[in-house]
Amino acid sequence: MSKRIVIALGGNALGNTPYEQLELVRKTAKPIVDLIEAGNEVIIAHGNGPQVGMINLGMSTAAEAKAIKSDMPFPECGAMSQGYIGYHLQNAIGNELAARGVDKDVATVVTQVLVDAADPAFQHPTKPVGAFYDKETADRIAAEKGYTMVEDAGRGYRQVVPSPKPIDVIEKNTVRALLKAGTVVITVGGGGIPVVRKDGKLFGTPAVIDKDFASAKLAELVDADMLIILTAVEKVAINFGKPDQKGLDVLTPDDARKYIEEKQFAPGSMLPKVQAAMGFAESKPGRVALITLLDKAKEGIEGKTGTRVQM
Amino acid sequence: MSKRIVIALGGNALGNTPYEQLELVRKTAKPIVDLIEAGNEVIIAHGNGPQVGMINLGMSTAAEAKAIKSDMPFPECGAMSQGYIGYHLQNAIGNELAARGVDKDVATVVTQVLVDAADPAFQHPTKPVGAFYDKETADRIAAEKGYTMVEDAGRGYRQVVPSPKPIDVIEKNTVRALLKAGTVVITVGGGGIPVVRKDGKLFGTPAVIDKDFASAKLAELVDADMLIILTAVEKVAINFGKPDQKGLDVLTPDDARKYIEEKQFAPGSMLPKVQAAMGFAESKPGRVALITLLDKAKEGIEGKTGTRVQM
Repeated sequence: MSKRIVIALGGNALGNTPYEQLELVRKTAKPIVDLIEAGNEVIIAHGNGPQVGMINLGMSTAAEAKAIKSDMPFPECGAMSQGYIGYHLQNAIGNELAARGVDKDVATVVTQVLVDAADPAFQHPTKPVGAFYDKETADRIAAEKGYTMVEDAGRGYRQVVPSPKPIDVIEKNTVRALLKAGTVVITVGGGGIPVVRKDGKLFGTPAVIDKDFASAKLAELVDADMLIILTAVEKVAINFGKPDQKGLDVLTPDDARKYIEEKQFAPGSMLPKVQAAMGFAESKPGRVALITLLDKAKEGIEGKTGTRVQM
Repeated sequence: MSKRIVIALGGNALGNTPYEQLELVRKTAKPIVDLIEAGNEVIIAHGNGPQVGMINLGMSTAAEAKAIKSDMPFPECGAMSQGYIGYHLQNAIGNELAARGVDKDVATVVTQVLVDAADPAFQHPTKPVGAFYDKETADRIAAEKGYTMVEDAGRGYRQVVPSPKPIDVIEKNTVRALLKAGTVVITVGGGGIPVVRKDGKLFGTPAVIDKDFASAKLAELVDADMLIILTAVEKVAINFGKPDQKGLDVLTPDDARKYIEEKQFAPGSMLPKVQAAMGFAESKPGRVALITLLDKAKEGIEGKTGTRVQM
């Protein structure tokens, strides 16, 4: 049974350097190509935490040292990370497909994701990004660029950006057209390049869109059957790390809400994954979100493992 | 008369910083959207000289200062530049289309371009890229990474990379599928991410593919009617800069070969543009390459200005 599947891959699974990433994408490509070989339409969304961090840190360090003429704003760093990660993924998946004799194209779409300028997150930037500065430099950058700079755990001052919710994927028609052509699509990298709409035009804005929420929004927009949110554990668990820890096979949105009230899922970790999964499962009858390990994705689709979030 | 047109945009026309680029793409978008509004199918290819230089220099400076864990290899810098420039172009063209009420999608495709590992260019790397180093550091990097480092005009040592000819565009089917869907496509940024094929697999290789040659190859592969190579002059001229300078309205490949023998066109400047234009014009009867200014592109298509390279 062929399914249209969005896979949300974590940026942490891609390593910390281009050399690590090149190795890791080769391994990542195998279970992804298993799903493609089984006849599924696959769309890959991915995080970019370590990668956009490295790019932003690298460019801002070089700019402060006057080795380059300008800093690189955060949305542009995100766009760079989409090119960088997308290239490695499309190359590795393409090579794996070729090795198996599967004739399929793979494409990375540079993707903007719309957020609402009135999203309350913009009043409370929470995500630290880029280099650490002393107070004087931080104050100068804040004055020059309008960035919000905060003291971070005694290590110095850093830019903080908000994490608004995704409301639309600008390149959704492009993704749809490529799926129609049978292409494996890589999109919403790092949750997408965040843009706001003003007077009908789109403007990049410094922000981090949670990649699981962006993946769920994309999965809705392309009418996917399944959203697979990859994580470091095989199943979502309640009482995590306690003697009575229990892995969940099925999680209904109602049960999930109850567990969230009990604070069963760690914020910034399993909580957004469960929330993104719930959002997708509730968006239309029959939609299923699966939370599991990459290596268990195939078995998970067959209903043998992982946590299925469904109505 | 609607035409399928590949526009090859120079990286130098995009400025030296992200702030300059954001301004410049807004201006660049207008004449491009004029062509789209007139009913043409438009594919945008672009250079990345200043941009990939900035990225490579920024990342290598930060890596040498140990601010980030690793350098960024040159193919990955090219991929980053495709994300960075593609995002700005698709955003600006999308905004200009929206402002005119034209409902069309714009997409940047991260693009690998195949080169031949046996291309003689690999024996003679000529393009300096990235940071300047002292001899000791250059020798260490050469030993660590296998890079070719050469002394550059008394300013220190730099990596040099070869400039092989493009032989295929890996994502050509993706570009075709998007054109079929009516999408404005941005592709082969910086001449494409150079890859070589070994045992059926593609591997990134440090190289710079001339963006005009890559654009001409793409134009052939998508069966474009016209290739527009944008430059800083309205027409190609012979006896350039001399009292008897003469702008050319039409240039046949045979005449071009004669002028090339007379060294009429500057290497690294007008020469590769003329050669790329000749290659496209000779690839199939009826194909026309136009060399002119961006602002003259519309008139050029109408046959009113620019230099038409045609059989």
